Amino acid sequence: MINFDSDYLKEFTFQIFKSMGCPDNHAMVAADCLNQADLRGVDSHGVARLSGYVRLWELKRLNATPEMKIIHETPSTAVLDGDLGLGLVTAPHAMQIAIDKAKIAGTGWVAVQNSNHYGIAGYHSMLALEHDMIGISMTNASPLVAPTFSKSRFLGTNPIAVAIPALNQPPFVIDMATTTVANGKLEVLQRKGEDAPLGWAQDKDGNPTTDAFALRKGGSMLPLGGDREHGGHKGYCLGAMVDIFSAVLSGANYGPWVPPFVAFLEPPANPVGNGIGHFLGAIRVDAFRPASEFKEHMDNWIETFRNAEPAAGYEKVLIPGDPERELTIERLKNGIPLHEQVINDLQELAAKFGLVFNDSPKQ
Amino acid sequence: MINFDSDYLKEFTFQIFKSMGCPDNHAMVAADCLNQADLRGVDSHGVARLSGYVRLWELKRLNATPEMKIIHETPSTAVLDGDLGLGLVTAPHAMQIAIDKAKIAGTGWVAVQNSNHYGIAGYHSMLALEHDMIGISMTNASPLVAPTFSKSRFLGTNPIAVAIPALNQPPFVIDMATTTVANGKLEVLQRKGEDAPLGWAQDKDGNPTTDAFALRKGGSMLPLGGDREHGGHKGYCLGAMVDIFSAVLSGANYGPWVPPFVAFLEPPANPVGNGIGHFLGAIRVDAFRPASEFKEHMDNWIETFRNAEPAAGYEKVLIPGDPERELTIERLKNGIPLHEQVINDLQELAAKFGLVFNDSPKQ
Repeated sequence: MINFDSDYLKEFTFQIFKSMGCPDNHAMVAADCLNQADLRGVDSHGVARLSGYVRLWELKRLNATPEMKIIHETPSTAVLDGDLGLGLVTAPHAMQIAIDKAKIAGTGWVAVQNSNHYGIAGYHSMLALEHDMIGISMTNASPLVAPTFSKSRFLGTNPIAVAIPALNQPPFVIDMATTTVANGKLEVLQRKGEDAPLGWAQDKDGNPTTDAFALRKGGSMLPLGGDREHGGHKGYCLGAMVDIFSAVLSGANYGPWVPPFVAFLEPPANPVGNGIGHFLGAIRVDAFRPASEFKEHMDNWIETFRNAEPAAGYEKVLIPGDPERELTIERLKNGIPLHEQVINDLQELAAKFGLVFNDSPKQ
Repeated sequence: MINFDSDYLKEFTFQIFKSMGCPDNHAMVAADCLNQADLRGVDSHGVARLSGYVRLWELKRLNATPEMKIIHETPSTAVLDGDLGLGLVTAPHAMQIAIDKAKIAGTGWVAVQNSNHYGIAGYHSMLALEHDMIGISMTNASPLVAPTFSKSRFLGTNPIAVAIPALNQPPFVIDMATTTVANGKLEVLQRKGEDAPLGWAQDKDGNPTTDAFALRKGGSMLPLGGDREHGGHKGYCLGAMVDIFSAVLSGANYGPWVPPFVAFLEPPANPVGNGIGHFLGAIRVDAFRPASEFKEHMDNWIETFRNAEPAAGYEKVLIPGDPERELTIERLKNGIPLHEQVINDLQELAAKFGLVFNDSPKQ
């Protein structure tokens, strides 16, 4: 692992997206989204994923110059056709539409079809915060997760993000896969040669397993809760809801038809919609009560929960968003650690576009 | 256990609410809500809970003749002051406001303050279905659940319900507590003298426990996921989100300030809001795409998931709402089974109001 300066990586990412032909403003927001993933510790969704987007673009499964358009709308809703653009671009665009609608109607809700992988869900939800709005963001994703009682991979890790503004306290930010763990956690165990706890995955026949490589052997990830006895059917419900909101409302592909992010897998035949789907929402807090009043109570909520009595063996209770914010401070200072494999990947990318990736960063 | 005719119980419930002074239309919807809980198998939220509402009313902690009013609104939002009414009445009223707003603005979102326990979350969400709308319903509740890493009971079982219409398939209906299991599941184990699986509860110091009586000994329930390793922090996030949407947006009490449903516990001193809070939403599906198109794809979604390959040892995959619908058919036919304790309770209630509860039902 070598640490790289955050701004250096962001500028490099910007240059790669520019080299793909993305307009400046698109390349900027896309680079910012990947950079925020790295800063917040979602390493699987940062620069490590950059070459994946490039490969999809080379296969023409991703459009670097999308002409996004609203294909249906009401005062508080819209459907955005992402024109097969980067989700990193279509989702912030959709969130801006949601914010604009919320300014007038109180709330705004935008379903996106014909899009691609949109990075971390939290990024898009947090765009609402500066407007004193609650931001909501969800997306469907390549099917790796089995519904309860099944061995069929029919759902993605389908994340939900909710960002809520506070006054003096930092915002409350949920950003969670609707599975027990994100796929990245299994990959960490694979590298370490360690087993996974029960409840994370099942084998190809649908039996419980501790094999961290289960997915590569035809197994599947489990919804939040794990097995039925531990509420896994509730995680399945949440993942299903995200799939329906993101794709059945928008006209994107859902369930087993969601096109894979990895370029070496072909999209399923006979698609039931266009691309993958997202669902973005913005709720003006003063559509319910004065913003200052709401935010004062959020401060009280956060302070109250932060001061909950720790359980035996624990130091303190966390507020959603705390770990990511603390890591951001640390990584802005000390840099973003990259695996050798990711560094090689970025150097190959640089060579492809006649750019340079400096593997001996200042830090 | 004796089985009682569903209509008989519903009529009896209606008479009790009438005897409390509820207007006919309020008593009707409240009785229907409890009856649907019994039919759908959520026995803890049906007639078994009727005497609890009466006791709160006797203590003047519940108002049988509320004058509900909208205290703030925008085209797609409203805040409803429930005037300390039955949640069984304020929530359907709020959902109707949400539906009316959705007809014009595409979506409607109503936060309710100054309310009481609202029965099963699913009932209110399902009111949207006949309008070709998606219904969303959530509420906060008496604090019994500890945030991850804590031993403080700061959250309720804070349920989320989402009802989505289909065409020829029955609707997709999620109705789930954001804990591993609802409290009723622990009570079943208590009666049987059995232990609980790990991940359901913790003891008063915050240690994992299999003691089904843990709550009575100062312990707490665990958020969906259980411990941190199994994603319990995600359940905590969801429960927290429900608390904030239901109460910080509406001006109700949140976290440890939520007043208890049981009459023998005093409401906390220094409340931070009014009563308990709910959050209801209605989304017109044709605010996104033509309703027939949406519902055809929902049918396809449901049929696809119903035909997922079962895991080893399982027969079939369920769609959210399947078990409750199947049980409703069975109970409409064979009656609703009541414990002796509940029957005694209902006879005492009858006596209190000069009514009769017939403990030898036809069935």
